[in-house]
Amino acid sequence: MAKPSNRDKILAEGLRVVHAHGFAGSGVRDIVRAAGVPQGSFTNHFASKEAFGLEIIDLYLARGRDTMKATLLDDTQPPLARLAAYIDFQKDRQSQNGMRNGCLFGNFAAEASESCDSIRLRLVDVFGEVQTAMTYCLRAAVKAGELPADFDCEETAGFIVSSLQGANLLCKTHRDSAPIDRFKKVLFEKVLR
Amino acid sequence: MAKPSNRDKILAEGLRVVHAHGFAGSGVRDIVRAAGVPQGSFTNHFASKEAFGLEIIDLYLARGRDTMKATLLDDTQPPLARLAAYIDFQKDRQSQNGMRNGCLFGNFAAEASESCDSIRLRLVDVFGEVQTAMTYCLRAAVKAGELPADFDCEETAGFIVSSLQGANLLCKTHRDSAPIDRFKKVLFEKVLR
Repeated sequence: MAKPSNRDKILAEGLRVVHAHGFAGSGVRDIVRAAGVPQGSFTNHFASKEAFGLEIIDLYLARGRDTMKATLLDDTQPPLARLAAYIDFQKDRQSQNGMRNGCLFGNFAAEASESCDSIRLRLVDVFGEVQTAMTYCLRAAVKAGELPADFDCEETAGFIVSSLQGANLLCKTHRDSAPIDRFKKVLFEKVLR
Repeated sequence: MAKPSNRDKILAEGLRVVHAHGFAGSGVRDIVRAAGVPQGSFTNHFASKEAFGLEIIDLYLARGRDTMKATLLDDTQPPLARLAAYIDFQKDRQSQNGMRNGCLFGNFAAEASESCDSIRLRLVDVFGEVQTAMTYCLRAAVKAGELPADFDCEETAGFIVSSLQGANLLCKTHRDSAPIDRFKKVLFEKVLR
């Protein structure tokens, strides 16, 4: 296996640093130090900190796509079980770090400001992609008879995407998984019927 | 009326700057410049940036308390109408700035990291206070017969607080109020019945 390049190291370690400390809260110096590469390496590989931010969003999204494939989009499993598995997966991943970091997309969304509009627009696409996968799963649930025929899949998918972001945020604040558990319970007992 | 002190100016303008650019994204220099006071004034009045952060959270909370009093806690109005008014108020306030800034509490929550644990703990209290007001309103709805007697007010209140944070976050990302509208629709049509 090829040794990771300085670029790969900066992306992998930079993602970790930004996830823990926020985008504005992570200086280029912190990132190159964590990656163990010289400071000049950052400017060699990234035109700006914003360009780097867009790349770590893509890296995090690649992981999110694997999760969606294994849950929401997996046609071999019953649809609502896939949705439950997706939520559990979010919870488990965040639990690995004591619920300290939240969702990278949510963190970026909260930090977004006029000065980094390219990042905000990238997040619009990312949340749209998750919502599309969620809609696909809910439509499959309608087809399978797990939800009524007139169920509004697109609207509910949007509701789930935003409510799950809020639950992630509260989990991070409380360092406790209760907000995700509560969301999942209300979702399955009240909304998905 | 007394002229605002430098301390008041720093708090009022600092809140505006941090709300627009994030806490880590707002330097002390940006804050004093916006307040039109000398840089030394900041260190005269605040022991640290973190201490200043806690004070702007309190200032923002004072406004939030006014909203809660006028909506969730206003016993002269029907309970579920008060909850609807609370959500509309959140939406209107954020619309004033083209949905650019989101909720200050949510932004702080997303930025929270190990280095500012006092802020995270303050947010636990803040979200708890909102949840208590929400629970009060839902219990009033049960008493008024607007919700069934066995309705789980506390759990639903927690669900509303976190989901509303998520809706705020998505509104900020999309610069559009659709996520709050969608949340309100699902809440009233599916959860509150």
